[in-house]
Amino acid sequence: MKKIDGGVTAAKGFSAAGLEVGIKNGHTGKKDMAMVYSSVPCKAAATFTTNVVKAAPVKWDMKVVDESRYVQAIVVNSGVANACTGSEGMEYCRQMACATAKGLNIDEDAVLVASTGVIGRQLPMDKINKGIELLIPELKDTLEAGTMAAEAIMTTDTVSKQIAYEVQIGGKTVTIGGMCKGSGMIHPNMCTMLGFVTTDINISKELLTEAVKADVKDTYNMISVDGDTSTNDTFVVIANGLAGNEEITEKNEDYELFTKALKEVNTYLAKKMAGDGEGATALFEVKVVNAPSKEEAVTLAKSVVTSSLTKAAIYGHDANWGRILCALGYSGVEFDPEKVDLYFESAYGKLQIVKDGRATDYSEEEATKILSEEEVTAIADMNAGNFEATAWGCDLTYDYVKINADYRS
Amino acid sequence: MKKIDGGVTAAKGFSAAGLEVGIKNGHTGKKDMAMVYSSVPCKAAATFTTNVVKAAPVKWDMKVVDESRYVQAIVVNSGVANACTGSEGMEYCRQMACATAKGLNIDEDAVLVASTGVIGRQLPMDKINKGIELLIPELKDTLEAGTMAAEAIMTTDTVSKQIAYEVQIGGKTVTIGGMCKGSGMIHPNMCTMLGFVTTDINISKELLTEAVKADVKDTYNMISVDGDTSTNDTFVVIANGLAGNEEITEKNEDYELFTKALKEVNTYLAKKMAGDGEGATALFEVKVVNAPSKEEAVTLAKSVVTSSLTKAAIYGHDANWGRILCALGYSGVEFDPEKVDLYFESAYGKLQIVKDGRATDYSEEEATKILSEEEVTAIADMNAGNFEATAWGCDLTYDYVKINADYRS
Repeated sequence: MKKIDGGVTAAKGFSAAGLEVGIKNGHTGKKDMAMVYSSVPCKAAATFTTNVVKAAPVKWDMKVVDESRYVQAIVVNSGVANACTGSEGMEYCRQMACATAKGLNIDEDAVLVASTGVIGRQLPMDKINKGIELLIPELKDTLEAGTMAAEAIMTTDTVSKQIAYEVQIGGKTVTIGGMCKGSGMIHPNMCTMLGFVTTDINISKELLTEAVKADVKDTYNMISVDGDTSTNDTFVVIANGLAGNEEITEKNEDYELFTKALKEVNTYLAKKMAGDGEGATALFEVKVVNAPSKEEAVTLAKSVVTSSLTKAAIYGHDANWGRILCALGYSGVEFDPEKVDLYFESAYGKLQIVKDGRATDYSEEEATKILSEEEVTAIADMNAGNFEATAWGCDLTYDYVKINADYRS
Repeated sequence: MKKIDGGVTAAKGFSAAGLEVGIKNGHTGKKDMAMVYSSVPCKAAATFTTNVVKAAPVKWDMKVVDESRYVQAIVVNSGVANACTGSEGMEYCRQMACATAKGLNIDEDAVLVASTGVIGRQLPMDKINKGIELLIPELKDTLEAGTMAAEAIMTTDTVSKQIAYEVQIGGKTVTIGGMCKGSGMIHPNMCTMLGFVTTDINISKELLTEAVKADVKDTYNMISVDGDTSTNDTFVVIANGLAGNEEITEKNEDYELFTKALKEVNTYLAKKMAGDGEGATALFEVKVVNAPSKEEAVTLAKSVVTSSLTKAAIYGHDANWGRILCALGYSGVEFDPEKVDLYFESAYGKLQIVKDGRATDYSEEEATKILSEEEVTAIADMNAGNFEATAWGCDLTYDYVKINADYRS
C-alpha cells in the first residue's frame, strides 16, 4: 500500500472539474461547483445523514444508490444546501441531475447530486445550469482537476482535503482516491460532511456496500466538530473496475487489502475534517483503551471529544483533566472512576496526568507544552477490559462562535 | 400564591450566612462559604448528578438524604469541587460535616455538604474549618443573610439567584424560598448546579420526595448551558414544618398547592441559571408544542436548546431557522419535517418564520429585532399531537470560550 499524489482523479478512468459560478453571494473567487465523472459505469455504495430532515439531494442519492443499475457522475454545489426546500427543491435537484446526464450523455439516474451550504434557500438554477454546461468540457483526469473539484466543495473549510493510495490486488495496481469537506455541523453519524471516493477496483456491489458500512463506523462516524448532525451529509464510494483485477465477490485476501486501503483513505479524510473544524486551532484525538466492550469504548471516546468544556480547555492548552473524567462520567457508560488513568500525548511528548482517578504530580508546564501542539491526544485507560476506540474532534475557539454567529451573511 | 422578597431565610425557622475565607485563590472579595440552618429538624428530599463520577459531597448527601432521621444544616463551599479526590476527599467532606455539626450541636448525619469549583483539588481544610467557625455566629434569619449565602455559592455566575413564594395551605401561610448557582457544565439531569430550597411546610418525607422528583423533570432537568453534566450537581429541599399546617400525607388539594408553588420557585431558579450561563447574553427558551407525546416534546426541545450552531445564531441575532429544523431532525424523534411551523418570540413581538417546513416571507429585520432581546423564545409547532415541553438555555458567545479556555487559573 502506497500513498500517492491526488484525489478523485487518481484512479483509472476518473476525471473531475471545479469552478466558480457565483452561488456564494459576496464571496467572489471561491469555487462553488464540482463534477466527477467516470468513463465507464460504476458500482456505488454510500451512507447518508441520520437526520430526519434530509436535504433533497440526500433523498435523490439514496434512491440512486439503492435502485440505479450504475452510477457514472457526481455533481456538487456549495453555498446552498437545498435542504428544507420542499417539492420545489426536489424538482431543482432532479433538474441538476438531468442537465448533468444530458451533457454527459448518460442516464439521469446515474448521476449523484450533493449540495452544501445555507439551509432553506432554493438553488439558483440559472447559475447551476450554467455551471453544469461549463464543467463538462473542463473534466480532466489530472491532479489539478481533482484539486479544483476538492476546492469547489468547500464551505467554511480553510483547506481542501484529498488523498490517494495505491495497493496491489490480484497482481493489479488498484487506486483509491478521495476528497471531502467539513467543517461545521460535524458530529458522529454523518454531519455536514461530503465525502467522495473513487476507485478502479473490480468488486461486487454487495461487498463494496459492506466495506463502506463497516469503514464509516471507525472513521467518519468517530469525528465531531460541534455535535450538530446536518441535513446533507453524504459519503459515497464509486468503483469502476478499470484496475482489471478479478472481481472481488467474497471476503478473501483481496477484500482485506481493499478494506485496509479504504480505511487509510477515510481515516485521513476524517481526521482532516475534524482538525479543520470551524475555528479550530488543533486536532483533538481521544483514545479510550482497555474498555469492557467496543461499544462502550466508542461511547466514552465520543463523550469526551464532544464536551464543550473539554474542547475549550484544549484551546486554552489547559490540562483540565477533571473535565475529561467528568465527560467520561456522563457518557452513560458505567465504570469505576478510581480505576481510570489519563494521559496527554502529542508530538512534544507523553505525560500521565491521572492515575487511579486522581491527579499524578505532573508538571503543568510540561502538560501545557504537550497541549500546545497542532495535534493533541487524550488517552483514557479504563483498566476494565480489552476494547478500544478513537474519536477525533477539535478545540472550541472564539472563531467557532464568530463563524456561526452570522454564517448566513 | 404570592412572590415575596428573600430566599433561603424566607421560611420560618431558617437562618443563613455567607462569607469569604480565601478558597478562591486570587479572587479576593468573593465569598466562598455558606451555611443554612433550621432551628428544628427538617425532612429532606433531593436529586443528584447522574454522572458516574460523583464528587465526595454528592456521595455524602445521598447517604444523608436516604438514611438520616432528619437534616438540620447545609454547609457549602465554592472554589473547589472536592471531585476526583479519592478517599482523602471523602474524609475531608466528612470533617466538613462533623465540624458543622459540632458547632451547631446537632448530629453529624444531619448536615448536608455541597462543594463547587475546580475538579481534582483537595479542600483547604484549614480555611474550611476556620470558615465554619466564623459562619455559625453569623447565622441570621434576615433577607441580607440569605443574600450573602446566595452570593457565597457562586462560581462563574454573574448574579446571585434567589426567590421566595408564600402560599396559603390549610389556613396557614406556607413559605418556600430558594437559592441556586450555575453556570457552566449545565445540562439536563443535574449539572454543576447547586440548588437549595427551604420551606416551613409540614409534609411527609414520602410526598416531599415525590414532589421534588416530579418537579425537577420540568425545571432543572430542562436547562442546558453546554451539554456537560457535572460531578457535583445537587438539588435539595428541606422542610421543617413550622408553618403549622396539618401534615400533608396524601395527594390532596394542599399537596397540589405546594407543588404549584414549588414549581414557581424552581422554574424561576432554573431559568435564572440558564440565562446566566457562562458568557451568555440571552436566555434562550425553546417551546415544542403539539408533539405526539410528552417524552418526544422533551427530546425535541432539549435537542434545539443544546445545539451549538443554534446557540451561536442566537448570539448573532440571526434567524437561522434551518439550524433549528436541523436540530429537531437529529434529536432521534421521528416526525414529518413538512408539517413543522416555527416562530420566534420575545418582548419585542412574535413572528412566524417557517410554515410547513419552509420559510415564510418574514422580514429578516423584524426577526433580528425579536432576537435582540434578553429573553428569546423559539416555538416549534410539530402539528402532530397534543403534548408540549419547554427547555431553557443560553446563547454561545466568545465569553463562554474565554471563561472555559482557562477556568482553572
